[in-house]
Amino acid sequence: MISEDHLIWQLTMLGAGMSVMEFVTVLLLGAALGGRSQAGESALQPTAQGEVQPSETADPPPIDYMIVVTGNELLEGQYADGHTVFITRTLLPLGYHCLGSMIVDDRREDIAEALRFASRKAKLVIVTGGLGPTENDVTREALAEFTGIELKEHPEALREMERRFNTPAAQLRPNLRKQTQVPVRGTYLKNPNGTAVGLVFDKDDLLLAALPGPPRELQPMVRDELLPYLDRRLGKRPRGCMLQLRFVGVGQSQIDHTLKQHGPLPEEMIWFSTFEAGRVDFTFVLPQDNQANRARLESVRQLARQHLAEYLYAEDATTLEEHVLQLLEQRGQRLALAEVGSGGSLAAAIGNASNARRALAGALVAADTDSLRRMLQIADAAWPPEDAQAERLRQLAQTTGKLTGADWVVVLGEPTRQADGNRSIVVAVKDHTGKVEQLQQAAASGEAGRAVLVTRLLDHLRRRLR
Amino acid sequence: MISEDHLIWQLTMLGAGMSVMEFVTVLLLGAALGGRSQAGESALQPTAQGEVQPSETADPPPIDYMIVVTGNELLEGQYADGHTVFITRTLLPLGYHCLGSMIVDDRREDIAEALRFASRKAKLVIVTGGLGPTENDVTREALAEFTGIELKEHPEALREMERRFNTPAAQLRPNLRKQTQVPVRGTYLKNPNGTAVGLVFDKDDLLLAALPGPPRELQPMVRDELLPYLDRRLGKRPRGCMLQLRFVGVGQSQIDHTLKQHGPLPEEMIWFSTFEAGRVDFTFVLPQDNQANRARLESVRQLARQHLAEYLYAEDATTLEEHVLQLLEQRGQRLALAEVGSGGSLAAAIGNASNARRALAGALVAADTDSLRRMLQIADAAWPPEDAQAERLRQLAQTTGKLTGADWVVVLGEPTRQADGNRSIVVAVKDHTGKVEQLQQAAASGEAGRAVLVTRLLDHLRRRLR
Repeated sequence: MISEDHLIWQLTMLGAGMSVMEFVTVLLLGAALGGRSQAGESALQPTAQGEVQPSETADPPPIDYMIVVTGNELLEGQYADGHTVFITRTLLPLGYHCLGSMIVDDRREDIAEALRFASRKAKLVIVTGGLGPTENDVTREALAEFTGIELKEHPEALREMERRFNTPAAQLRPNLRKQTQVPVRGTYLKNPNGTAVGLVFDKDDLLLAALPGPPRELQPMVRDELLPYLDRRLGKRPRGCMLQLRFVGVGQSQIDHTLKQHGPLPEEMIWFSTFEAGRVDFTFVLPQDNQANRARLESVRQLARQHLAEYLYAEDATTLEEHVLQLLEQRGQRLALAEVGSGGSLAAAIGNASNARRALAGALVAADTDSLRRMLQIADAAWPPEDAQAERLRQLAQTTGKLTGADWVVVLGEPTRQADGNRSIVVAVKDHTGKVEQLQQAAASGEAGRAVLVTRLLDHLRRRLR
Repeated sequence: MISEDHLIWQLTMLGAGMSVMEFVTVLLLGAALGGRSQAGESALQPTAQGEVQPSETADPPPIDYMIVVTGNELLEGQYADGHTVFITRTLLPLGYHCLGSMIVDDRREDIAEALRFASRKAKLVIVTGGLGPTENDVTREALAEFTGIELKEHPEALREMERRFNTPAAQLRPNLRKQTQVPVRGTYLKNPNGTAVGLVFDKDDLLLAALPGPPRELQPMVRDELLPYLDRRLGKRPRGCMLQLRFVGVGQSQIDHTLKQHGPLPEEMIWFSTFEAGRVDFTFVLPQDNQANRARLESVRQLARQHLAEYLYAEDATTLEEHVLQLLEQRGQRLALAEVGSGGSLAAAIGNASNARRALAGALVAADTDSLRRMLQIADAAWPPEDAQAERLRQLAQTTGKLTGADWVVVLGEPTRQADGNRSIVVAVKDHTGKVEQLQQAAASGEAGRAVLVTRLLDHLRRRLR
């Protein structure tokens, strides 16, 4: 059910670079900012003082921006740029539209070149990195040179640094102290998580915001300092509303096709999907949270429920593991696992779910079937001969059920090579009636392969438990 | 020991976007290419036919390049760009120097703008994405327009598509068939993993290479097609040599400090570190693999062995899990686990190590201590009272050891709240003499927290087993 009081419906977006909590924070911030939204302006002009009542349907035009990421280490492949995905994801539901992102070496000429390119494309440019105390940190100077806006030591930033290092200003090393220099036209953005403050250069119709490179400094600064600043400077952006749907056992393209076939989906809706280890999340975003947009999202939800019910397991942040455990709990039943061919991956997935305590009876992990048998103390008399692998799995399932008191048991056998040369593992699933079913699954290879195997087994349980 | 026959010493580099195997492949390719290295040219001219004997010390000047990543989804924060880190990392040890990377929307004007910018900076531009069959896929046309080089259906690429779809050319849909269009000046790069071939536009002093967007198509194409092509076109690049050292129980900055203190490190050496879940990998790269450079890397290795021996657990691709299992195997001992407070994370880490079979006796995972006790069939008489938690852990450790026949046992208890408000778990470690030691660890919270806890426990075992 949808409550009118929900500021945001479905808050999760999972993926590289952002945790659920980070994304929730961003959205709640969006919600807080948008409490009484003003129509945004397309040009970068200060907002008029008078309150403008928002129209229920008209979304303000998006604000275009560019990103410039500085750092030679990114051009040497030391790690992937995570700033672009964080910033674009954070600003998207607030109606900011990223036109491009550039990674450049931390040299003044390279930064200046990138700024020329970026500022021709957009009147808001977000620059990351190079604000620290080392010789490589030249972003501050590059921006001052590019804009012609002077830097001046800011007394408040200096006092903050005196406090942080418990050292009077006169004794601060010059390379540290330079971090208190801020543009004389623009503002600075506080950094409670590091020494380098953020900087905003405000030049005519151009805003250049520079943020520190470490993600733990940059991310809170975007949320707590940059967004409120842009809000004051450019007019409050309305919060967006979004819907997330989680699927398993179906491909992205089939979901896509089904939604379009039964659509049409609202034109201004942004939607995208992530695919990982056989699980597909679809996220639908509308840039403003109002009655009309909520109704649009609701129609998408109904469409998915109607045509993709078989694959849809969650309409919120619930994971597939949590969903399967919920289904067990609803039946008052418990699950046990005995794993050989997957090294404990299924046990770790289920054992770490938030609701594991109630429905997980226990798990055994072994490197081979003999070790598993030993842990289960199965007597020789009860142990089927080697050519009766199916019987052995059944015996393992039944003994695991007895030992743990579980209603359901999943046993994953050792990988074996098939006639076609592929490796597979046989899985035995004992249900609450005592019936044991056997499935053959491709053997997992590598972390990604194990993750897919875990998804398949959870999906199998999900279907059996519905 | 270092063997002269080793083409590359230490092959691993772990991190975002590239698996160990991928990196090994890249380096081995580099080695294969460089079997008899020629001096590279700085300008993009075809190599002279005659063999040039490499000088042992002079590295050829690096070849500069730019990357243009196309795809609107990256500007909406759907996922992070992984191509830049893959390409830069792959090309770095072959002497290619990335000057910058740009993400642009998949619109012809945006691509053209980026190409103008990139081609002014470097004479080699690698473009990714937008070669597929959909309307959004406009990279091929944008490149043709930008270079003025016409596209023409390539008969071989067309035959390959007929085979792939088992459909005669005349019946192929036009949007599929357009993928067989390749530049009339340049070449195309085969794609055994998808329908879109790669394209190289060869215009005077400028090379523009376009690669398909899906990583599983792009990555093998870079290794198997693009690098050999560049090698023919620009002259063979020498393979580099590298050294990787893996540490645990010490921070990046302390390693950094120690190396510099006892250095100096060779000036032209590129080195960087990755940090994940308490494990630090340092990688040292020299752009050419010769006697002198190997000696330089060897001196770094000796330096680390001398001053950081306590923390150094591997000088190759061995993981911490594999290392601990190796130590057990060397002693002819086995390990068992019983986990409550970590949901099976330690069991999954160890159980999935390549060498788990020999030294892992088994693992039990439970959501609470009662379930664990039930699985271990500990009788009431042997079960200490609730206020004797330490005794309970000891009992669990001893019973687990008996049940599995393991010499070493690690038991992780339930998380409990301490006087200071923090949650912690008590860990019991039973060694091969029967002695049980108890450690208190911060309780793991979230996936990252569990990974750190796993590292700490493995590090503890490592120190005990050395």
